[in-house]
Amino acid sequence: MNLTIDREVLLENLNTISRGLPTKSPMPILTGIKLYVTENDLFMTSSNSDISVEVTINDASLEIKEPGQTVVPGKFIDIIRKINSRKVNLYLAEDKILVIKADRGEYKLYVMDPLEYPKMDFVALENPLKLNADVLKNMIKSTVFATSSSEKKPILTGVNFTNVNNTLTVVATDSFRLSQKVISIEPYNDFNITIPNKSLDELLKAIDQFAGDVNLYFQSNKLLAQFKNVCFQTRLLDGNYPDTSKLISSNFAINLTFNKDELIEAVERVSLLSPRDSAKDKEITYSIVKLELKKDRSVEISTTNSQIGDAKEELLPTGIDADGPIAVGFSSRYLLDALKSFISTEVTLGLQAETRPFIVRGENDSNLTQLILPVRMN
Amino acid sequence: MNLTIDREVLLENLNTISRGLPTKSPMPILTGIKLYVTENDLFMTSSNSDISVEVTINDASLEIKEPGQTVVPGKFIDIIRKINSRKVNLYLAEDKILVIKADRGEYKLYVMDPLEYPKMDFVALENPLKLNADVLKNMIKSTVFATSSSEKKPILTGVNFTNVNNTLTVVATDSFRLSQKVISIEPYNDFNITIPNKSLDELLKAIDQFAGDVNLYFQSNKLLAQFKNVCFQTRLLDGNYPDTSKLISSNFAINLTFNKDELIEAVERVSLLSPRDSAKDKEITYSIVKLELKKDRSVEISTTNSQIGDAKEELLPTGIDADGPIAVGFSSRYLLDALKSFISTEVTLGLQAETRPFIVRGENDSNLTQLILPVRMN
Repeated sequence: MNLTIDREVLLENLNTISRGLPTKSPMPILTGIKLYVTENDLFMTSSNSDISVEVTINDASLEIKEPGQTVVPGKFIDIIRKINSRKVNLYLAEDKILVIKADRGEYKLYVMDPLEYPKMDFVALENPLKLNADVLKNMIKSTVFATSSSEKKPILTGVNFTNVNNTLTVVATDSFRLSQKVISIEPYNDFNITIPNKSLDELLKAIDQFAGDVNLYFQSNKLLAQFKNVCFQTRLLDGNYPDTSKLISSNFAINLTFNKDELIEAVERVSLLSPRDSAKDKEITYSIVKLELKKDRSVEISTTNSQIGDAKEELLPTGIDADGPIAVGFSSRYLLDALKSFISTEVTLGLQAETRPFIVRGENDSNLTQLILPVRMN
Repeated sequence: MNLTIDREVLLENLNTISRGLPTKSPMPILTGIKLYVTENDLFMTSSNSDISVEVTINDASLEIKEPGQTVVPGKFIDIIRKINSRKVNLYLAEDKILVIKADRGEYKLYVMDPLEYPKMDFVALENPLKLNADVLKNMIKSTVFATSSSEKKPILTGVNFTNVNNTLTVVATDSFRLSQKVISIEPYNDFNITIPNKSLDELLKAIDQFAGDVNLYFQSNKLLAQFKNVCFQTRLLDGNYPDTSKLISSNFAINLTFNKDELIEAVERVSLLSPRDSAKDKEITYSIVKLELKKDRSVEISTTNSQIGDAKEELLPTGIDADGPIAVGFSSRYLLDALKSFISTEVTLGLQAETRPFIVRGENDSNLTQLILPVRMN
């Protein structure tokens, strides 16, 4: 194996490969990157328990002097990142050492046996679902934060994607809040899959700079996203995702519209004083604030902390369709996460009653709904 | 107590005060900030075991309606930082609560008893030593990183400032490397003091935006730095600082001059592969690289790692005054710390022998010397 390539091209592809590279693994060979060089192409592969990534490089700068294959340690990425030469030469010495030559530098890395690297199948069946990368990024970003971080109900650590009659509904919930985005897609078979949140975080990073179409290929227990020269494959979560379709009401006693940034800033300030509960299973009681519509149609965001003191901010809603008073208490983090998922300047809170879930929508975020379960206030 | 002040003015002074504010303290009252309001001035004080800071505010925006005093929790700073109103009003309610009013927000903080706050004396005796803030920053930045992080020899956790005949010598060493900066000062009494490294880190932050003269007042066990409206006082370390004056030789077998950035980059890249030793007391064996002047007058920076592989970079010195070969092994972090303390584009390494300390100097960094003890190579 012996090749020369532009460092920038190699680095960009290694950054993509790093999305699937574990730092530790029960199979040590998986902490390495497989390089497979044919007459014309350089293939690089990484894999962890959730994700496998493969890139195919046949860039104009790639000069292959000798095909071959090997598995190099993850350190390879650090070296290519730090080098500042325009070109790098990579060759295998006695099948034991990868030599990296760059200007006046020479780096030697002990390699692993490529025959030990498990065979990865990136099966691109026919008929992919094509989704624009920006649409896909938006769907993931507006929902993934609401997945559960606890493994108690593993299915809730994923985001559910359900297609029924070409309407794709994307849902995430940790059972204290729920995020839902609905879009129309091109005609495509119905499906119902749940993708691990970590896989989606990595996919987001992998497609961050990409603006074209992503091809999605569905299999029984995995999903392959193919774009540019990249195959990104993730396992799917087993089990049935709970039916959340009836949780989101469409009737609200009161709809309150706010300037989003004003609401975010007021909640952030007030939550400085809200009592903290760092107990893991008590996330719901974390940083509680209260939102209250008063009789005079002003809104007060407030908190009381027996240790430190209390805080309140008064806000004037830009829209209001019924009279109060009504109040809800909630985790400020949940409302802040929800608000930050909107691009709209104005957001509307739909309230039912003190003990009923409330929702947030934005005029310019069509079919995005954030639902938050209130907490009991003293 | 009741006053109104521009938020920006208050925040800037609170940022200074935060330099002396502990998050935890055996004396809970010290986790608070003392506010003391006279007819004309607002005084704020903070103190931890090493540092005490006091600011005196009589800004044009300050309107005092009622004098008084109190001790407010550190949370006060977070609130003032997050508020975005132009003015804030602070008043004491029943000596129990500080009320902070800003636009439509109202924050109440439980306060502590100001009579419990220990009396701080910021004694500015006569005849300070005046040092320009930029000169002082430079002296601290070029030495403080070389102090010891271990408490084994407490005196080495400080930076030593010695004035003899108006020549101020500033030295730090962890016994594996040494930094020394020498400057001439205005006529002033001889002194020999050692300032804790943490105090100097905080002083650096406190004077970061300041460019005028800092007045230094020396006392037997403490030092007061006075600038703008700020009194910054630190305790001094007990004990005699070791005499390091004979460690720095002026005769070197070989002087090698390099472009500083090229040398930094080569060492950083090579050290990617150097063996790590995370054992605390073995700092000296951390990330070892070797620098070797070859017979052909080229210089090789290299490392060997039995686990991963090896690396080498060839550099051409821009100046060289004797023939090799000669080689030294050292902690790459020590050389990188040292190199980054120079503003010079070109730096010169003075080498004696494989087992003897070597030094670094820069053409535009007058009287700055960095010394590094080599490690034995296999």
